[in-house]
Amino acid sequence: MRKTFAVTARDTSSAARTGKIRTPHGDIETPAFAPVASQGTVKALLHEQVENLGAQLILVNAYHLYLRPGLETIAESGGIHDFISWPKPILSDSGGFQIYSLTPLVKVTPEGVKFSSHLDGTKIFLRPEDVVDIQQSLGTDIAMALDYFLPFPSTKARLKEAVKLTSLWARRSKDRFLEKPARQQLWGITQGSVFWDLRQQSIEDLLAIEFDGYALGGLGIGEPKAELMETLEKADGLLPRDRPRYLMGMGYVEDIVEAIDRGIDLFDCVLPTRNARNGTLFSSRGKIVIKNQKYARDKRPIDAECGCYTCRHFSRAYLRHLYEREEISSAVLNTIHNLFFYLDIFHKIRQSIALDSYRELKRQLLNQLKESEP
Amino acid sequence: MRKTFAVTARDTSSAARTGKIRTPHGDIETPAFAPVASQGTVKALLHEQVENLGAQLILVNAYHLYLRPGLETIAESGGIHDFISWPKPILSDSGGFQIYSLTPLVKVTPEGVKFSSHLDGTKIFLRPEDVVDIQQSLGTDIAMALDYFLPFPSTKARLKEAVKLTSLWARRSKDRFLEKPARQQLWGITQGSVFWDLRQQSIEDLLAIEFDGYALGGLGIGEPKAELMETLEKADGLLPRDRPRYLMGMGYVEDIVEAIDRGIDLFDCVLPTRNARNGTLFSSRGKIVIKNQKYARDKRPIDAECGCYTCRHFSRAYLRHLYEREEISSAVLNTIHNLFFYLDIFHKIRQSIALDSYRELKRQLLNQLKESEP
Repeated sequence: MRKTFAVTARDTSSAARTGKIRTPHGDIETPAFAPVASQGTVKALLHEQVENLGAQLILVNAYHLYLRPGLETIAESGGIHDFISWPKPILSDSGGFQIYSLTPLVKVTPEGVKFSSHLDGTKIFLRPEDVVDIQQSLGTDIAMALDYFLPFPSTKARLKEAVKLTSLWARRSKDRFLEKPARQQLWGITQGSVFWDLRQQSIEDLLAIEFDGYALGGLGIGEPKAELMETLEKADGLLPRDRPRYLMGMGYVEDIVEAIDRGIDLFDCVLPTRNARNGTLFSSRGKIVIKNQKYARDKRPIDAECGCYTCRHFSRAYLRHLYEREEISSAVLNTIHNLFFYLDIFHKIRQSIALDSYRELKRQLLNQLKESEP
Repeated sequence: MRKTFAVTARDTSSAARTGKIRTPHGDIETPAFAPVASQGTVKALLHEQVENLGAQLILVNAYHLYLRPGLETIAESGGIHDFISWPKPILSDSGGFQIYSLTPLVKVTPEGVKFSSHLDGTKIFLRPEDVVDIQQSLGTDIAMALDYFLPFPSTKARLKEAVKLTSLWARRSKDRFLEKPARQQLWGITQGSVFWDLRQQSIEDLLAIEFDGYALGGLGIGEPKAELMETLEKADGLLPRDRPRYLMGMGYVEDIVEAIDRGIDLFDCVLPTRNARNGTLFSSRGKIVIKNQKYARDKRPIDAECGCYTCRHFSRAYLRHLYEREEISSAVLNTIHNLFFYLDIFHKIRQSIALDSYRELKRQLLNQLKESEP
């Protein structure tokens, strides 16, 4: 199988590693964070801002784009990169998570998933093959196989069924994927929640099929943190070292640094961007809820140690004023800050792994995050 | 009286001229367009974007800022420039227009204007002296005297009263203004609608008081275009050549080019920014309503001749998609385009006046604007 990933450095005191994912639109240095751009735009930001903040890839949602504007519109523009005019790597989520969590009347059969559009109720039937076709039509750099995702908590019996179906679908996804020669990558998603026998089965099934990368799905949705971390640790022992690992949807820095410690390479989450729009700002000394009255005359930047455009120019008092006035620039400035905060941490993480001092950085980050609101 | 304005070139076939308004935060080359930033931000844009688009000044609203965040908050930050972190000139509208058009229970007496806050109904009484104080506290570069503005149509008798009161208030504003030495400028606003005897009286009254600049208020609110233009023509003959003239709130390019032809130097309007958020985009070949189905697969930029970030990168199809999805970046990209369109026209206008070919440019612009939607 072709090589689309290479480990570039290992931290000797943890399973953390740096690596490079090669895609037709450039390399992604891992550990990496993918800002979420479900509809083809990171919410509140322009592409040039996302790039300047240091994002190496964005995540779009195949399900949303399939519904609107539709595949034909995107194909006519020459694919998703041309349609949205983003020159760097794009990962498409299969949309499985959205189908299971957003849409009514979901019915999963071995053949595929039947559901009603969350927009107008139109009945839709998608087989794993269709989801591969959709993402090939989009032309993303990394496509995700359709998995069967269950909420937390679910019974072990149901989770076992979901793993079985996910493996079956993974096989069919890969077969379909191979029908067309593509520079696109196909990654598989493992399920099984925090039941190690199920997760192990899921991983082994997918390893037998061989994917360009392996995702851990169905995590970070309420299961005990210790069990989640144990799952990651065990998965690290089972997953091949020469393939990237992707922990889907997990966004708290506290969890991210622990996951990286356990060998995870890729993350995505709406947390920094959604929190920004809600006025919750991250800082190296705890969170700031900008609407609080106590910031009304606070001339300090959000984070004195931060080098982002927002912190270099604007006071908490002004940011609070913009938030209270519901100005669009409030969402923009807050998103710039929160995304800078995340991407800067990932930059530091990669540096520390290269210098073999990851645990030191991790300890420092975790200590800072424990501090009270500044 | 100090000189804060100098004419730098005259068009020989019209009353158009270029000039320079000197302010503590830099020069403004006229004819100039002031993007509206009522709450201290141009809606949907970051300051760096506004600057990069070529804006030389922004307009804030004294009434809005007086209510929220309040003068103390702004004064504590060291004034409006520091509070909002905008380094270039700022003009503050007195807020008269907002008081007369937004607030309930307005009662105008010779002493001042009584009204209820449009936010919470709090009773507020503002004398022209207060409005000077407010703007001195803000520390804007150009302050506007409180005028008495009437809607169109109003009876001549009422308009006559409004002119009388506006002149009385202008005198008191100037007296108050002179109590504190300031680098700030104070401009007077003339009223009288399109009744020349009233407008003439208003202008003569204000000339006797002497202001740094003269605004024409109460226009562009429904009066016949021919009468408006006649008023501007006559005002041009009466207003001193060595003071800047400001036509408040008028935003259609068709009108702006005619007003410049009649010697106007400064404009402000929400039109480019508000239209952008509503999805109405200007182009050199007519307007585009981006939500229209016909743009769903249109790969062309809004305006092939436009050099803005939006037109250099994005198709109508993508912009329509963002608009339909109600993405924040839709408002941002559209505003960048519309404001670029305006500021670029003003740039060309200044060039053409310097080259003594203003009428040629005007004819060209008007012909283009008459073209149908592209």
